Amino acid sequence: MMPQDANFQGNVFGGTIMKLVDEIAGSVAAIHSRKNCVTASMDQMNFYEPVIIGNLLILKASVNYVSHTSMEVGVRIEARDLMKDEITHTGSSYLTLVALDENRKPTIVADIIPETDAEKRRYAEAKERRARRLAAAGKN
Amino acid sequence: MMPQDANFQGNVFGGTIMKLVDEIAGSVAAIHSRKNCVTASMDQMNFYEPVIIGNLLILKASVNYVSHTSMEVGVRIEARDLMKDEITHTGSSYLTLVALDENRKPTIVADIIPETDAEKRRYAEAKERRARRLAAAGKN
Amino acid sequence: MMPQDANFQGNVFGGTIMKLVDEIAGSVAAIHSRKNCVTASMDQMNFYEPVIIGNLLILKASVNYVSHTSMEVGVRIEARDLMKDEITHTGSSYLTLVALDENRKPTIVADIIPETDAEKRRYAEAKERRARRLAAAGKN
Amino acid sequence: MMPQDANFQGNVFGGTIMKLVDEIAGSVAAIHSRKNCVTASMDQMNFYEPVIIGNLLILKASVNYVSHTSMEVGVRIEARDLMKDEITHTGSSYLTLVALDENRKPTIVADIIPETDAEKRRYAEAKERRARRLAAAGKN
Amino acid sequence: MMPQDANFQGNVFGGTIMKLVDEIAGSVAAIHSRKNCVTASMDQMNFYEPVIIGNLLILKASVNYVSHTSMEVGVRIEARDLMKDEITHTGSSYLTLVALDENRKPTIVADIIPETDAEKRRYAEAKERRARRLAAAGKN
Amino acid sequence: MMPQDANFQGNVFGGTIMKLVDEIAGSVAAIHSRKNCVTASMDQMNFYEPVIIGNLLILKASVNYVSHTSMEVGVRIEARDLMKDEITHTGSSYLTLVALDENRKPTIVADIIPETDAEKRRYAEAKERRARRLAAAGKN
Repeated sequence: MMPQDANFQGNVFGGTIMKLVDEIAGSVAAIHSRKNCVTASMDQMNFYEPVIIGNLLILKASVNYVSHTSMEVGVRIEARDLMKDEITHTGSSYLTLVALDENRKPTIVADIIPETDAEKRRYAEAKERRARRLAAAGKN
Repeated sequence: MMPQDANFQGNVFGGTIMKLVDEIAGSVAAIHSRKNCVTASMDQMNFYEPVIIGNLLILKASVNYVSHTSMEVGVRIEARDLMKDEITHTGSSYLTLVALDENRKPTIVADIIPETDAEKRRYAEAKERRARRLAAAGKN
Repeated sequence: MMPQDANFQGNVFGGTIMKLVDEIAGSVAAIHSRKNCVTASMDQMNFYEPVIIGNLLILKASVNYVSHTSMEVGVRIEARDLMKDEITHTGSSYLTLVALDENRKPTIVADIIPETDAEKRRYAEAKERRARRLAAAGKN
Repeated sequence: MMPQDANFQGNVFGGTIMKLVDEIAGSVAAIHSRKNCVTASMDQMNFYEPVIIGNLLILKASVNYVSHTSMEVGVRIEARDLMKDEITHTGSSYLTLVALDENRKPTIVADIIPETDAEKRRYAEAKERRARRLAAAGKN
Repeated sequence: MMPQDANFQGNVFGGTIMKLVDEIAGSVAAIHSRKNCVTASMDQMNFYEPVIIGNLLILKASVNYVSHTSMEVGVRIEARDLMKDEITHTGSSYLTLVALDENRKPTIVADIIPETDAEKRRYAEAKERRARRLAAAGKN
Repeated sequence: MMPQDANFQGNVFGGTIMKLVDEIAGSVAAIHSRKNCVTASMDQMNFYEPVIIGNLLILKASVNYVSHTSMEVGVRIEARDLMKDEITHTGSSYLTLVALDENRKPTIVADIIPETDAEKRRYAEAKERRARRLAAAGKN
């Protein structure tokens, strides 16, 4: 994280982090679907700890769940203090992305089959989050 | 919105919009509190309509509610098609920002007194959203 | 205004401001003409007061006058000190923009009919400035 | 000139050119004065010819005249078509810059002694432009 | 890789890749040494295959060797075609970085003890490259 | 060189310089060949002296040698301290660029005929470097 990413007190802007989170989510969704993807929504996102200039930002992303043309991507945000070798979990984010075909219309995405325990847990949790989102939007 | 803000099909990245939303929220919070502010959270955010290259992005922000050291800022996102003179409501976003003093510690923000009907409605809705956020975080 | 917009003493570069002035003038001209517009000239421009890092730059632009394929756009530049809540008028700028058709040729722009007193004054002053520009260029 | 410097028809923005003109003027003024310099004004500037993506922009700048704490810098703007090996004079610009000391106060600049014929012509013309600027500002 | 990273035919600039290679090398060196590091040299670098817009650039870096105040960092450059799920090895690069203390003077770096076979091979090869560099510089 | 080009101690990143070196090499190669050019390799490059924020970076480039579809471009890197009026030679770099036709295939470049003594020396040295590169790559 560089000076242009932060305010005068050295705190990295939330928006800078959100932009990077969206980029990595788009890459992971494109790798899974082999399609161009757009972000349809981002869940509520908390910044637990400040990220400061000089930190290395580490973003770990996975496709948790697929539903027809959309995917939930989870992104874990960590800040690494290069001098102290400490890693802090600063936030997490769940985004819904939609795969588009050549005419910019939503297109079916191959399902994922969770295999490891971590994948199965992420799959189940993502499915629940999706149900809650639909309920909140009055669509269930 | 320029080519560097969008993917190859011309759709502006969600992350580009989030970054601008966070910037305007930070400015509005600083104007109200006269303090340096950091983003603590962003509510769930939906992108109803695509924004495309060439659109003028219009962000309208207001401080809706104040609670001790934090403020809820609402941002309405509109895309203006310069050639057709059409304005589309593409999304809305609610952010919580915290005012910091010179030692980067949270500091009290002057309350807001809603006056117009729109301000009173925004105040009441923000108060409710805050209660829901606290409940979801298990703090109420 | 961020560190990358300024020199080492914190003064925002004149060129950074000119670039933003040109962007807003281009947007306002496109909104009026519904065409892609290019800048043909910028009048002499003075920077009355320094703009510093952390200021919010406020640009207010209007199409003052139309002449066949060209428009005069006026831009008022203000700097807002977010901490003190003071607004300073740091400069003003008049640009001439030309509307282009699909073949990049100048194309007729709909005239403007000034209605308010402010609009009428801006129209009259812009007309005079145009006459002076043509005289200076030896074209009257 | 790259895609991010231009509009959708490939015309480089006037503001992008102004920003670069201001940067080179600041460098030339700093080299002459060995001080940090700020832009006080930019004379009326015409864009005679479009600059397009892929052109190499060539800026030639010189300190034409010194008056106490201020310098006039002239910048000649040329666009080089790399494929055709053609150079076009697209505009010229005269800027007034002020040298600042460590306290950000204007400070005396060493005078220039024009030697070549070109330098003497530039000096005389700059002196005249300065008189016209002062007259226009009601200060002569 | 985005349009601003590439030329008009869509080939990503070598310089864009070198800049990213240098960034990751600096991060890896800082993680190992817990110091601020500067690049002292970059070995000859070949671009075997073009990287194009839309590719995901994957940079894998490791500290191969330590000698007093300097480290050799190796960076493997891969381009991932997101749509085809193909990964191409496009180049490799060896950089020498020097760790600096608070006064910007070179400072001793903790040695590395290679453990895996890959680490031992990288260590031995890096030692040889260092000998060749010193010989070429007439310092052996 | 601006804050975004440097680390926290004010040293400009090697990668920032490499990116600019590659840009100027690409421009010089395009001017000579009147073709779009891509970088095939960059020779070993040493940074003799640190470049710091506020320095003016001066890059001097020339096409030294042509071989069928490729050119060797030499770039001399100097840093100018604007306040002290001192110029430091901070490094030199030799790049091989390939000219491409409309189908992105290598295309023949007009030879250069060295005329001045400096040009003849650069030609002879470049020819030798090319022989060494081919030998190192096992192609001679």
